[in-house]
Amino acid sequence: MVAIFGLLTDFGDRDPYRGQLASVLLRRNPSCQILDLSHQVDPHNIPQGAFFLRASWPWLPRGCIVLAVVDPGVGSSRDIVLLRSRREYVLAPDNGLLDLLLRDVSPDGLWRLGTKRYSGASSTFHGRDVFAPLAADLAEGRDPDRLGERLAGQDLVRLPFGEAEVEGNRLEARVLHVDRFGNCVLNIPESAWKNVFGGRDGADLLEPVSVFVTLVRAYNDIPPGSAGLLPGSQGYLELAVDRASCAERLGLESGDRVVLRL
Amino acid sequence: MVAIFGLLTDFGDRDPYRGQLASVLLRRNPSCQILDLSHQVDPHNIPQGAFFLRASWPWLPRGCIVLAVVDPGVGSSRDIVLLRSRREYVLAPDNGLLDLLLRDVSPDGLWRLGTKRYSGASSTFHGRDVFAPLAADLAEGRDPDRLGERLAGQDLVRLPFGEAEVEGNRLEARVLHVDRFGNCVLNIPESAWKNVFGGRDGADLLEPVSVFVTLVRAYNDIPPGSAGLLPGSQGYLELAVDRASCAERLGLESGDRVVLRL
Amino acid sequence: MVAIFGLLTDFGDRDPYRGQLASVLLRRNPSCQILDLSHQVDPHNIPQGAFFLRASWPWLPRGCIVLAVVDPGVGSSRDIVLLRSRREYVLAPDNGLLDLLLRDVSPDGLWRLGTKRYSGASSTFHGRDVFAPLAADLAEGRDPDRLGERLAGQDLVRLPFGEAEVEGNRLEARVLHVDRFGNCVLNIPESAWKNVFGGRDGADLLEPVSVFVTLVRAYNDIPPGSAGLLPGSQGYLELAVDRASCAERLGLESGDRVVLRL
Repeated sequence: MVAIFGLLTDFGDRDPYRGQLASVLLRRNPSCQILDLSHQVDPHNIPQGAFFLRASWPWLPRGCIVLAVVDPGVGSSRDIVLLRSRREYVLAPDNGLLDLLLRDVSPDGLWRLGTKRYSGASSTFHGRDVFAPLAADLAEGRDPDRLGERLAGQDLVRLPFGEAEVEGNRLEARVLHVDRFGNCVLNIPESAWKNVFGGRDGADLLEPVSVFVTLVRAYNDIPPGSAGLLPGSQGYLELAVDRASCAERLGLESGDRVVLRL
Repeated sequence: MVAIFGLLTDFGDRDPYRGQLASVLLRRNPSCQILDLSHQVDPHNIPQGAFFLRASWPWLPRGCIVLAVVDPGVGSSRDIVLLRSRREYVLAPDNGLLDLLLRDVSPDGLWRLGTKRYSGASSTFHGRDVFAPLAADLAEGRDPDRLGERLAGQDLVRLPFGEAEVEGNRLEARVLHVDRFGNCVLNIPESAWKNVFGGRDGADLLEPVSVFVTLVRAYNDIPPGSAGLLPGSQGYLELAVDRASCAERLGLESGDRVVLRL
Repeated sequence: MVAIFGLLTDFGDRDPYRGQLASVLLRRNPSCQILDLSHQVDPHNIPQGAFFLRASWPWLPRGCIVLAVVDPGVGSSRDIVLLRSRREYVLAPDNGLLDLLLRDVSPDGLWRLGTKRYSGASSTFHGRDVFAPLAADLAEGRDPDRLGERLAGQDLVRLPFGEAEVEGNRLEARVLHVDRFGNCVLNIPESAWKNVFGGRDGADLLEPVSVFVTLVRAYNDIPPGSAGLLPGSQGYLELAVDRASCAERLGLESGDRVVLRL
């Protein structure tokens, strides 16, 4: 079986970091597949990284081992955790990066990994020096129980904000991510499309600006000059305008608050 | 034989979109090769995407299946078309993306693909939900005639502008692309180097500014402080200056008009 | 054995250049591994490219063939050189790109390659038209002695500046690279951590601004609001501040001068 390593980091592309991480994996396993999920999580933006991981999860190739490295605490005493579900693995620092995934996915196993044996590791680049060797060990069939000790989901660090909640007719949400096209992914799970918005044709945006938002299925269906709310393709609802940047139009950035009146 | 999927999109790199597209391909075929041709076509810039496709075509590995996804009309009724030439395939929306390629390449086959069986697809991300499964089907040897119906090249949507044309001693062209180094690729095919510019040592640029342009073979041969026109490496002529940005010097962007007097 | 090609270029990602380079390699060898070390060396920034190569070297997979293409002189008479060390190869223009690597690594062989047989090559894109076929030849076992003639390390072009030097209690260094997080990699090799800074707890930065710099092991250990100097993970010492951009704080860019008083 081909080992497939999925890389999700905030390394960006201007540095040799992604290349060195991939090098170490190829050095251990010259026949592996390297799957770049994304390296463009904003530096240290853990909620955004959690969204990328959650959004990419349903599409992963079977047996994929994800290295999720958004790790502002690198070199401190934060733990590295391992999640297994189906046949897939995720390695991540214990800092909230698994939060959104664990709201929907019941893991078969969760481990807190000892990293002492990587004593030669740099203090600043655990992606290359700790995550990559751990991932290569897993690909070679190493038993997670020999790499660390089991823990329960409730022991993990959580995000400062999780999913949006309805209070009365008011829905307060956060922007998880602004995509290249200016679409704003909100922390409103897709299930709300039916449960909360079912039977409606729109909602009033109260913050950051006052405007009516039409419920649509495709970007093309958003009335010219106005804003739309749609299920998107990432497991969460998106604010968008047709063929223009919604983020620019409404002045939104990742992490911003959005308030809707139903 | 190794299946090779070539990816050409306007997804950029700040989103999880490219990763999910690659995930679906690897899920279907864990041993495939993913060849990133480019994900940095400007959002919705179809002429630029058509240029990238045309420029990359001569170098494709044998049997490569290209997914060309620059698709502002995603979710509308636009068709998906399939082109086969030699042993290579291109999947693209019917929006002009194949225009420049079809000026030089005679396809062995062209099909309009039915996409109804992908009824579970999102309305916003056909790259992942429709193009990728179609490409995986082709890699497994599916007969294109079973995926859709034949059509003729003249039935395809064309670009608003194609190749530059000479009128008298005047040549009106467009900037197809500004590269990282500021070189401006024009929609003047390389054949014009001999047919139009043969025997000359330069030409007068009339728009966007008045300046003499030297005909050269290499960036190094452009006289310091002046501009050059050269065959480049992409199948079209390029405006350039040596070790500086021609686009900045002349104020040019993708899509801009350029007028030369011969 | 799987052929592994490592790509290190200043092509960036907005152009079809990286895709065409990878295409040619896959065309010659459909089962090869393409390892993107980086394509984001600043255009024509040879010292930065030399740093990327030196920093990536220790992590390369066995037998990796690196194509190092930062090549402002493309199309001129500059030579292409080949370095072999252990089982790895590096192909590079003779312009200083190998300088930092050769300060630490003793090659088993160095060759000046004839490129005349690539007479059909473009004058502007030797990465695709010359480096890629040469690399494919090497992967197929071609003897370097049949590709060119041996030369000695001292015959190679050097960088305008190499490694930092101590004069009295003054250390004058250069910024090799500013990373995504704003950390500034200096041309002070890691060995200086012990040889020059051993037993100290800090140093006085004199240029570009006057400030005390604490010696630390991890970004987390830098006192809030101040600057730190640490071994980093790239083989050179780095100037950094915790969870903020050191480059912005101190006004530093790649190539800038930094002066420390011990």
